[in-house]
Amino acid sequence: MNTTDRNLITTTLTFWDNLNETEKNLILNNITSVNYQLGEHIHSSGTDCIGVLLIKKGGIRTYILSEDGRDITLYRLTAGDVCILSASCILKNITFAVHIDAEVASEAFLIHTSIFEQLYRQNIYVENFAYKNTIDRFSDVMWAMEQILFMSFDKRLAIFLLKESSKTNSSTIHLSHEQIAKYISSAREVVSRMLKYFATEGMVKLARGEVTLLDKERLEKLLV
Amino acid sequence: MNTTDRNLITTTLTFWDNLNETEKNLILNNITSVNYQLGEHIHSSGTDCIGVLLIKKGGIRTYILSEDGRDITLYRLTAGDVCILSASCILKNITFAVHIDAEVASEAFLIHTSIFEQLYRQNIYVENFAYKNTIDRFSDVMWAMEQILFMSFDKRLAIFLLKESSKTNSSTIHLSHEQIAKYISSAREVVSRMLKYFATEGMVKLARGEVTLLDKERLEKLLV
Repeated sequence: MNTTDRNLITTTLTFWDNLNETEKNLILNNITSVNYQLGEHIHSSGTDCIGVLLIKKGGIRTYILSEDGRDITLYRLTAGDVCILSASCILKNITFAVHIDAEVASEAFLIHTSIFEQLYRQNIYVENFAYKNTIDRFSDVMWAMEQILFMSFDKRLAIFLLKESSKTNSSTIHLSHEQIAKYISSAREVVSRMLKYFATEGMVKLARGEVTLLDKERLEKLLV
Repeated sequence: MNTTDRNLITTTLTFWDNLNETEKNLILNNITSVNYQLGEHIHSSGTDCIGVLLIKKGGIRTYILSEDGRDITLYRLTAGDVCILSASCILKNITFAVHIDAEVASEAFLIHTSIFEQLYRQNIYVENFAYKNTIDRFSDVMWAMEQILFMSFDKRLAIFLLKESSKTNSSTIHLSHEQIAKYISSAREVVSRMLKYFATEGMVKLARGEVTLLDKERLEKLLV
Protein backbone atom coordinates (compact mmCIF):
# COMPACT_ATOMS: atom_id res chain seq x y z
CA MET A 1 0.00 0.00 0.00
CA ASN A 2 1.39 3.42 -0.92
CA THR A 3 1.65 6.31 1.53
CA THR A 4 -1.27 8.28 0.02
CA ASP A 5 -3.62 5.32 0.45
CA ARG A 6 -2.38 4.63 3.96
CA ASN A 7 -2.84 8.28 4.88
CA LEU A 8 -6.35 8.30 3.50
CA ILE A 9 -7.23 5.32 5.68
CA THR A 10 -5.62 6.57 8.88
CA THR A 11 -6.99 10.10 8.62
CA THR A 12 -10.49 9.22 7.40
CA LEU A 13 -10.98 6.60 10.10
CA THR A 14 -10.78 9.02 13.03
CA PHE A 15 -10.71 6.12 15.52
CA TRP A 16 -7.32 5.00 14.14
CA ASP A 17 -5.28 6.11 17.17
CA ASN A 18 -7.64 4.18 19.44
CA LEU A 19 -6.93 0.87 17.72
CA ASN A 20 -4.30 -1.53 18.99
CA GLU A 21 -1.76 -3.03 16.58
CA THR A 22 -3.83 -6.18 15.97
CA GLU A 23 -6.88 -4.08 15.10
CA LYS A 24 -4.86 -1.80 12.79
CA ASN A 25 -3.49 -4.83 10.97
CA LEU A 26 -6.94 -6.36 10.72
CA ILE A 27 -7.99 -3.34 8.67
CA LEU A 28 -4.80 -2.96 6.64
CA ASN A 29 -4.70 -6.67 5.74
CA ASN A 30 -8.35 -6.91 4.79
CA ILE A 31 -9.24 -3.61 3.18
CA THR A 32 -9.92 -3.99 -0.55
CA SER A 33 -10.12 -1.60 -3.48
CA VAL A 34 -13.39 -1.40 -5.34
CA ASN A 35 -14.34 0.38 -8.56
CA TYR A 36 -17.81 1.40 -9.59
CA GLN A 37 -18.97 2.44 -13.02
CA LEU A 38 -21.19 5.45 -13.61
CA GLY A 39 -24.68 4.55 -12.44
CA GLU A 40 -23.65 1.26 -10.85
CA HIS A 41 -25.77 0.06 -7.97
CA ILE A 42 -23.69 -0.19 -4.76
CA HIS A 43 -26.27 -0.99 -2.12
CA SER A 44 -29.88 -2.16 -2.27
CA SER A 45 -32.15 -1.47 0.62
CA GLY A 46 -32.52 -4.46 2.87
CA THR A 47 -30.54 -6.96 0.83
CA ASP A 48 -26.87 -5.96 0.53
CA CYS A 49 -24.60 -5.07 3.39
CA ILE A 50 -21.18 -4.93 1.79
CA GLY A 51 -19.37 -2.88 4.43
CA VAL A 52 -17.93 0.58 5.02
CA LEU A 53 -16.73 2.56 1.98
CA LEU A 54 -13.93 5.14 2.04
CA ILE A 55 -14.37 7.12 -1.13
CA LYS A 56 -11.11 7.83 -2.99
CA LYS A 57 -12.48 9.24 -6.24
CA GLY A 58 -15.87 10.04 -7.73
CA GLY A 59 -19.13 10.28 -5.86
CA ILE A 60 -22.11 8.27 -4.69
CA ARG A 61 -25.76 9.11 -4.19
CA THR A 62 -28.05 7.76 -1.46
CA TYR A 63 -31.79 7.75 -2.12
CA ILE A 64 -35.07 6.09 -1.26
CA LEU A 65 -37.49 4.57 -3.74
CA SER A 66 -41.25 4.28 -3.44
CA GLU A 67 -43.24 1.26 -4.57
CA ASP A 68 -44.29 3.13 -7.69
CA GLY A 69 -40.71 4.10 -8.50
CA ARG A 70 -40.47 7.67 -7.20
CA ASP A 71 -36.91 8.49 -6.24
CA ILE A 72 -35.86 10.90 -3.47
CA THR A 73 -32.21 11.91 -3.12
CA LEU A 74 -31.14 11.95 0.54
CA TYR A 75 -27.49 13.02 0.15
CA ARG A 76 -24.37 12.65 -1.95
CA LEU A 77 -20.84 11.73 -0.79
CA THR A 78 -17.56 12.45 -2.55
CA ALA A 79 -13.80 11.84 -2.20
CA GLY A 80 -12.68 11.73 1.44
CA ASP A 81 -16.16 10.83 2.72
CA VAL A 82 -17.01 7.61 4.52
CA CYS A 83 -20.20 5.74 3.64
CA ILE A 84 -21.55 3.85 6.63
CA LEU A 85 -25.08 3.06 5.43
CA SER A 86 -23.62 0.44 3.05
CA ALA A 87 -22.95 -1.44 6.32
CA SER A 88 -26.27 -0.53 7.94
CA CYS A 89 -27.00 -4.14 8.93
CA ILE A 90 -24.42 -3.67 11.71
CA LEU A 91 -26.34 -0.78 13.29
CA LYS A 92 -29.35 -2.54 14.75
CA ASN A 93 -31.28 0.66 15.36
CA ILE A 94 -31.33 1.62 11.69
CA THR A 95 -34.73 0.36 10.65
CA PHE A 96 -34.99 2.06 7.28
CA ALA A 97 -33.61 1.04 3.94
CA VAL A 98 -31.82 3.11 1.33
CA HIS A 99 -30.32 2.67 -2.12
CA ILE A 100 -26.80 3.76 -3.00
CA ASP A 101 -25.52 4.28 -6.56
CA ALA A 102 -22.25 5.51 -8.04
CA GLU A 103 -23.04 8.90 -9.59
CA VAL A 104 -19.86 8.90 -11.62
CA ALA A 105 -17.08 6.36 -12.11
CA SER A 106 -15.79 5.95 -8.55
CA GLU A 107 -12.97 4.36 -6.59
CA ALA A 108 -13.19 3.39 -2.94
CA PHE A 109 -11.67 1.32 -0.18
CA LEU A 110 -14.03 -1.25 1.26
CA ILE A 111 -13.86 -2.56 4.82
CA HIS A 112 -16.02 -5.65 4.62
CA THR A 113 -18.96 -5.96 6.99
CA SER A 114 -17.49 -8.91 8.90
CA ILE A 115 -14.25 -7.03 9.63
CA PHE A 116 -15.95 -3.76 10.54
CA GLU A 117 -18.50 -5.56 12.70
CA GLN A 118 -15.75 -7.30 14.66
CA LEU A 119 -14.04 -3.96 15.40
CA TYR A 120 -17.39 -2.25 16.09
CA ARG A 121 -18.16 -4.87 18.73
CA GLN A 122 -14.80 -4.94 20.47
CA ASN A 123 -13.79 -1.27 20.31
CA ILE A 124 -16.18 1.42 21.50
CA TYR A 125 -14.33 4.08 19.50
CA VAL A 126 -15.23 2.28 16.29
CA GLU A 127 -18.84 1.98 17.43
CA ASN A 128 -18.77 5.67 18.22
CA PHE A 129 -17.37 6.54 14.81
CA ALA A 130 -20.16 4.61 13.08
CA TYR A 131 -22.78 6.45 15.11
CA LYS A 132 -21.24 9.88 14.59
CA ASN A 133 -21.05 9.33 10.85
CA THR A 134 -24.67 8.18 10.79
CA ILE A 135 -25.75 11.34 12.62
CA ASP A 136 -23.96 13.44 9.99
CA ARG A 137 -26.19 11.70 7.46
CA PHE A 138 -29.22 12.35 9.68
CA SER A 139 -28.45 16.06 9.34
CA ASP A 140 -28.16 15.68 5.56
CA VAL A 141 -31.51 13.91 5.41
CA MET A 142 -33.20 16.61 7.47
CA TRP A 143 -31.83 19.20 5.07
CA ALA A 144 -33.16 17.24 2.09
CA MET A 145 -36.53 16.82 3.79
CA GLU A 146 -36.86 20.53 4.45
CA GLN A 147 -35.93 21.32 0.87
CA ILE A 148 -38.55 18.95 -0.43
CA LEU A 149 -41.33 19.85 1.94
CA PHE A 150 -40.99 23.53 2.34
CA MET A 151 -39.25 25.23 -0.49
CA SER A 152 -41.01 26.57 -3.54
CA PHE A 153 -39.91 24.91 -6.71
CA ASP A 154 -38.24 27.82 -8.54
CA LYS A 155 -36.03 28.28 -5.47
CA ARG A 156 -35.11 24.60 -5.37
CA LEU A 157 -34.22 24.51 -9.03
CA ALA A 158 -32.22 27.76 -8.84
CA ILE A 159 -30.26 26.47 -5.84
CA PHE A 160 -29.47 23.24 -7.67
CA LEU A 161 -28.29 25.00 -10.83
CA LEU A 162 -26.10 27.47 -8.93
CA LYS A 163 -24.56 24.76 -6.73
CA GLU A 164 -23.91 22.49 -9.69
CA SER A 165 -22.32 25.34 -11.64
CA SER A 166 -20.05 26.31 -8.77
CA LYS A 167 -19.15 22.67 -8.10
CA THR A 168 -18.10 22.04 -11.70
CA ASN A 169 -16.67 25.54 -12.05
CA SER A 170 -18.59 26.03 -15.28
CA SER A 171 -21.64 27.97 -16.41
CA THR A 172 -22.84 24.98 -18.41
CA ILE A 173 -24.37 22.04 -16.59
CA HIS A 174 -24.26 18.79 -18.52
CA LEU A 175 -27.37 17.09 -17.21
CA SER A 176 -30.68 16.17 -18.81
CA HIS A 177 -33.97 17.44 -17.38
CA GLU A 178 -34.62 13.87 -16.29
CA GLN A 179 -31.37 13.78 -14.31
CA ILE A 180 -31.98 17.18 -12.74
CA ALA A 181 -35.46 16.03 -11.73
CA LYS A 182 -33.95 12.98 -10.04
CA TYR A 183 -31.40 15.02 -8.11
CA ILE A 184 -33.94 17.47 -6.74
CA SER A 185 -36.63 14.85 -6.27
CA SER A 186 -39.11 16.27 -8.71
CA ALA A 187 -40.68 15.17 -11.99
CA ARG A 188 -39.12 15.73 -15.43
CA GLU A 189 -42.16 17.65 -16.64
CA VAL A 190 -41.97 20.07 -13.72
CA VAL A 191 -38.24 20.65 -14.28
CA SER A 192 -38.72 21.19 -18.02
CA ARG A 193 -41.52 23.66 -17.46
CA MET A 194 -39.54 25.69 -14.94
CA LEU A 195 -36.37 25.62 -17.07
CA LYS A 196 -38.39 26.88 -20.05
CA TYR A 197 -39.65 29.69 -17.85
CA PHE A 198 -36.09 30.48 -16.74
CA ALA A 199 -35.08 30.48 -20.44
CA THR A 200 -37.81 32.87 -21.56
CA GLU A 201 -36.71 35.13 -18.73
CA GLY A 202 -33.15 35.04 -20.07
CA MET A 203 -31.74 33.41 -16.94
CA VAL A 204 -30.60 30.23 -18.71
CA LYS A 205 -30.04 28.90 -22.22
CA LEU A 206 -31.20 25.36 -22.99
CA ALA A 207 -29.67 22.80 -25.33
CA ARG A 208 -29.88 19.01 -25.57
CA GLY A 209 -28.48 17.55 -22.34
CA GLU A 210 -27.27 20.87 -21.00
CA VAL A 211 -28.32 24.05 -19.23
CA THR A 212 -26.17 27.18 -19.43
CA LEU A 213 -26.57 29.82 -16.75
CA LEU A 214 -26.74 33.27 -18.37
CA ASP A 215 -27.81 35.42 -15.45
CA LYS A 216 -26.60 34.05 -12.11
CA GLU A 217 -27.48 37.26 -10.33
CA ARG A 218 -31.17 36.87 -11.16
CA LEU A 219 -31.11 33.20 -10.21
CA GLU A 220 -29.58 34.15 -6.89
CA LYS A 221 -32.33 36.71 -6.36
CA LEU A 222 -34.86 33.84 -6.41
CA LEU A 223 -33.29 32.56 -3.20
CA VAL A 224 -34.22 35.56 -1.05
CA MET B 1 -35.77 9.97 45.68
CA ASN B 2 -38.07 6.94 45.79
CA THR B 3 -37.14 3.53 44.38
CA THR B 4 -39.41 3.80 41.34
CA ASP B 5 -37.79 7.07 40.29
CA ARG B 6 -34.31 5.74 40.89
CA ASN B 7 -35.09 2.61 38.89
CA LEU B 8 -36.42 4.69 36.02
CA ILE B 9 -33.18 6.64 35.92
CA THR B 10 -30.82 3.68 36.20
CA THR B 11 -32.65 1.53 33.66
CA THR B 12 -33.42 4.25 31.12
CA LEU B 13 -29.86 5.56 31.14
CA THR B 14 -28.30 2.39 29.73
CA PHE B 15 -24.79 3.73 30.41
CA TRP B 16 -25.45 3.68 34.16
CA ASP B 17 -23.17 0.72 34.93
CA ASN B 18 -20.35 2.44 33.08
CA LEU B 19 -20.42 5.47 35.37
CA ASN B 20 -18.15 5.77 38.39
CA GLU B 21 -19.62 6.78 41.77
CA THR B 22 -18.83 10.47 41.24
CA GLU B 23 -20.59 10.46 37.89
CA LYS B 24 -23.62 8.63 39.29
CA ASN B 25 -23.89 11.18 42.08
CA LEU B 26 -23.51 14.02 39.64
CA ILE B 27 -26.71 12.84 37.96
CA LEU B 28 -28.63 11.91 41.11
CA ASN B 29 -27.81 15.20 42.84
CA ASN B 30 -28.64 17.38 39.86
CA ILE B 31 -31.55 15.71 38.10
CA THR B 32 -34.73 17.77 38.43
CA SER B 33 -38.42 17.04 37.96
CA VAL B 34 -40.26 19.04 35.34
CA ASN B 35 -43.95 19.26 34.50
CA TYR B 36 -45.40 20.37 31.20
CA GLN B 37 -48.96 21.36 30.47
CA LEU B 38 -50.87 20.13 27.44
CA GLY B 39 -49.48 21.95 24.41
CA GLU B 40 -46.60 23.55 26.29
CA HIS B 41 -43.53 24.35 24.24
CA ILE B 42 -40.50 22.39 25.51
CA HIS B 43 -37.84 23.15 22.94
CA SER B 44 -37.54 25.75 20.20
CA SER B 45 -35.29 25.08 17.29
CA GLY B 46 -31.99 26.80 17.64
CA THR B 47 -32.66 28.76 20.81
CA ASP B 48 -33.29 26.44 23.78
CA CYS B 49 -31.06 23.61 24.87
CA ILE B 50 -32.48 22.59 28.22
CA GLY B 51 -30.96 19.12 28.48
CA VAL B 52 -31.93 15.45 28.31
CA LEU B 53 -35.50 14.50 29.26
CA LEU B 54 -36.51 11.14 30.77
CA ILE B 55 -40.26 10.96 30.27
CA LYS B 56 -42.15 9.66 33.30
CA LYS B 57 -45.72 10.37 32.22
CA GLY B 58 -47.48 11.79 29.20
CA GLY B 59 -45.99 12.34 25.78
CA ILE B 60 -44.12 14.81 23.63
CA ARG B 61 -44.12 15.56 19.92
CA THR B 62 -41.14 16.61 17.82
CA TYR B 63 -41.81 18.53 14.61
CA ILE B 64 -40.38 20.96 12.12
CA LEU B 65 -41.97 24.21 11.06
CA SER B 66 -41.66 25.97 7.72
CA GLU B 67 -41.37 29.72 7.31
CA ASP B 68 -45.02 29.89 6.31
CA GLY B 69 -46.09 27.85 9.34
CA ARG B 70 -46.49 24.36 7.91
CA ASP B 71 -45.94 21.76 10.60
CA ILE B 72 -44.49 18.27 10.01
CA THR B 73 -44.54 15.70 12.83
CA LEU B 74 -41.25 13.79 12.99
CA TYR B 75 -41.98 11.47 15.94
CA ARG B 76 -43.63 11.21 19.34
CA LEU B 77 -42.12 9.95 22.62
CA THR B 78 -43.94 8.59 25.65
CA ALA B 79 -43.28 7.28 29.19
CA GLY B 80 -39.94 5.49 29.45
CA ASP B 81 -38.47 7.25 26.41
CA VAL B 82 -35.45 9.55 26.51
CA CYS B 83 -35.49 12.81 24.58
CA ILE B 84 -32.01 13.79 23.44
CA LEU B 85 -32.82 16.45 20.85
CA SER B 86 -33.77 18.84 23.66
CA ALA B 87 -30.00 18.81 24.30
CA SER B 88 -29.02 18.90 20.63
CA CYS B 89 -26.57 21.77 21.17
CA ILE B 90 -24.22 19.18 22.72
CA LEU B 91 -24.10 17.08 19.54
CA LYS B 92 -22.10 19.27 17.19
CA ASN B 93 -22.99 17.29 14.09
CA ILE B 94 -26.72 17.95 14.46
CA THR B 95 -27.16 20.87 12.11
CA PHE B 96 -30.93 20.91 11.94
CA ALA B 97 -33.46 22.42 14.28
CA VAL B 98 -36.67 20.95 15.65
CA HIS B 99 -39.53 21.98 17.88
CA ILE B 100 -40.72 19.88 20.82
CA ASP B 101 -44.12 20.27 22.52
CA ALA B 102 -45.93 18.40 25.28
CA GLU B 103 -48.82 16.61 23.60
CA VAL B 104 -50.58 15.98 26.89
CA ALA B 105 -49.82 17.00 30.46
CA SER B 106 -46.43 15.40 31.03
CA GLU B 107 -43.90 14.69 33.76
CA ALA B 108 -40.22 14.14 33.16
CA PHE B 109 -36.78 14.10 34.74
CA LEU B 110 -34.42 16.67 33.32
CA ILE B 111 -30.64 16.28 33.22
CA HIS B 112 -29.53 19.81 32.53
CA THR B 113 -27.32 20.45 29.51
CA SER B 114 -24.26 21.45 31.57
CA ILE B 115 -24.37 18.20 33.58
CA PHE B 116 -25.02 15.97 30.60
CA GLU B 117 -22.36 17.72 28.54
CA GLN B 118 -19.77 17.15 31.28
CA LEU B 119 -20.53 13.42 31.34
CA TYR B 120 -20.73 13.24 27.55
CA ARG B 121 -17.24 14.70 27.30
CA GLN B 122 -15.58 12.59 29.98
CA ASN B 123 -17.30 9.24 29.49
CA ILE B 124 -17.47 7.65 26.04
CA TYR B 125 -20.40 5.44 27.11
CA VAL B 126 -22.49 8.54 27.69
CA GLU B 127 -21.44 9.94 24.30
CA ASN B 128 -22.35 6.60 22.78
CA PHE B 129 -25.76 6.60 24.42
CA ALA B 130 -26.52 10.05 23.03
CA TYR B 131 -25.58 8.94 19.52
CA LYS B 132 -27.51 5.70 19.69
CA ASN B 133 -30.63 7.49 20.87
CA THR B 134 -30.25 10.05 18.07
CA ILE B 135 -30.03 7.26 15.49
CA ASP B 136 -33.28 5.78 16.86
CA ARG B 137 -34.83 9.14 16.05
CA PHE B 138 -33.20 9.10 12.61
CA SER B 139 -35.12 5.88 11.95
CA ASP B 140 -38.32 7.53 13.16
CA VAL B 141 -37.76 10.48 10.86
CA MET B 142 -37.15 8.25 7.86
CA TRP B 143 -40.39 6.47 8.62
CA ALA B 144 -42.22 9.79 8.81
CA MET B 145 -40.60 10.97 5.60
CA GLU B 146 -41.64 7.84 3.72
CA GLN B 147 -45.18 8.19 5.03
CA ILE B 148 -45.37 11.76 3.84
CA LEU B 149 -43.72 11.32 0.50
CA PHE B 150 -44.94 8.00 -0.69
CA MET B 151 -48.13 6.84 0.84
CA SER B 152 -51.54 7.58 -0.57
CA PHE B 153 -53.63 9.63 1.73
CA ASP B 154 -56.43 7.17 2.57
CA LYS B 155 -53.75 4.72 3.73
CA ARG B 156 -52.05 7.34 5.88
CA LEU B 157 -55.28 8.38 7.52
CA ALA B 158 -56.37 4.78 8.12
CA ILE B 159 -53.02 3.93 9.70
CA PHE B 160 -53.26 6.94 11.98
CA LEU B 161 -56.81 6.14 13.11
CA LEU B 162 -56.02 2.48 13.79
CA LYS B 163 -52.82 3.27 15.69
CA GLU B 164 -54.50 5.97 17.74
CA SER B 165 -57.38 3.65 18.57
CA SER B 166 -55.08 0.82 19.66
CA LYS B 167 -52.90 3.21 21.66
CA THR B 168 -55.82 4.63 23.62
CA ASN B 169 -57.53 1.24 23.72
CA SER B 170 -60.76 2.82 22.52
CA SER B 171 -62.76 2.93 19.29
CA THR B 172 -63.37 6.63 19.75
CA ILE B 173 -60.58 9.04 19.01
CA HIS B 174 -60.91 12.40 20.71
CA LEU B 175 -59.17 14.64 18.22
CA SER B 176 -60.40 17.39 15.92
CA HIS B 177 -59.80 17.20 12.16
CA GLU B 178 -57.34 20.04 12.63
CA GLN B 179 -55.35 18.01 15.18
CA ILE B 180 -55.39 14.88 13.03
CA ALA B 181 -54.15 16.95 10.08
CA LYS B 182 -51.29 18.21 12.20
CA TYR B 183 -50.28 14.74 13.34
CA ILE B 184 -50.19 13.29 9.86
CA SER B 185 -48.77 16.43 8.27
CA SER B 186 -51.72 17.19 6.05
CA ALA B 187 -54.30 19.95 5.73
CA ARG B 188 -57.55 20.07 7.70
CA GLU B 189 -59.61 20.20 4.51
CA VAL B 190 -57.99 17.06 3.17
CA VAL B 191 -58.56 15.20 6.44
CA SER B 192 -62.21 16.33 6.63
CA ARG B 193 -62.88 15.25 3.08
CA MET B 194 -61.37 11.81 3.58
CA LEU B 195 -63.12 11.32 6.94
CA LYS B 196 -66.43 12.22 5.31
CA TYR B 197 -65.72 9.61 2.67
CA PHE B 198 -64.88 7.04 5.36
CA ALA B 199 -68.15 7.96 7.10
CA THR B 200 -70.31 7.55 4.00
CA GLU B 201 -68.66 4.17 3.55
CA GLY B 202 -69.66 3.23 7.11
CA MET B 203 -66.07 2.84 8.29
CA VAL B 204 -66.24 5.66 10.86
CA LYS B 205 -68.82 7.81 12.63
CA LEU B 206 -68.09 11.52 13.04
CA ALA B 207 -69.05 13.85 15.88
CA ARG B 208 -67.67 17.16 17.10
CA GLY B 209 -64.06 16.61 18.18
CA GLU B 210 -64.21 12.86 17.78
CA VAL B 211 -63.99 10.02 15.29
CA THR B 212 -65.39 6.57 16.14
CA LEU B 213 -64.10 3.57 14.24
CA LEU B 214 -67.04 1.37 13.19
CA ASP B 215 -65.35 -1.03 10.79
CA LYS B 216 -61.70 -1.61 11.65
CA GLU B 217 -61.49 -4.55 9.30
CA ARG B 218 -62.26 -2.38 6.28
CA LEU B 219 -59.84 0.29 7.45
CA GLU B 220 -57.16 -2.36 7.75
CA LYS B 221 -57.91 -3.48 4.21
CA LEU B 222 -56.88 -0.04 2.99
CA LEU B 223 -53.35 -0.79 4.16
CA VAL B 224 -52.72 -3.66 1.78
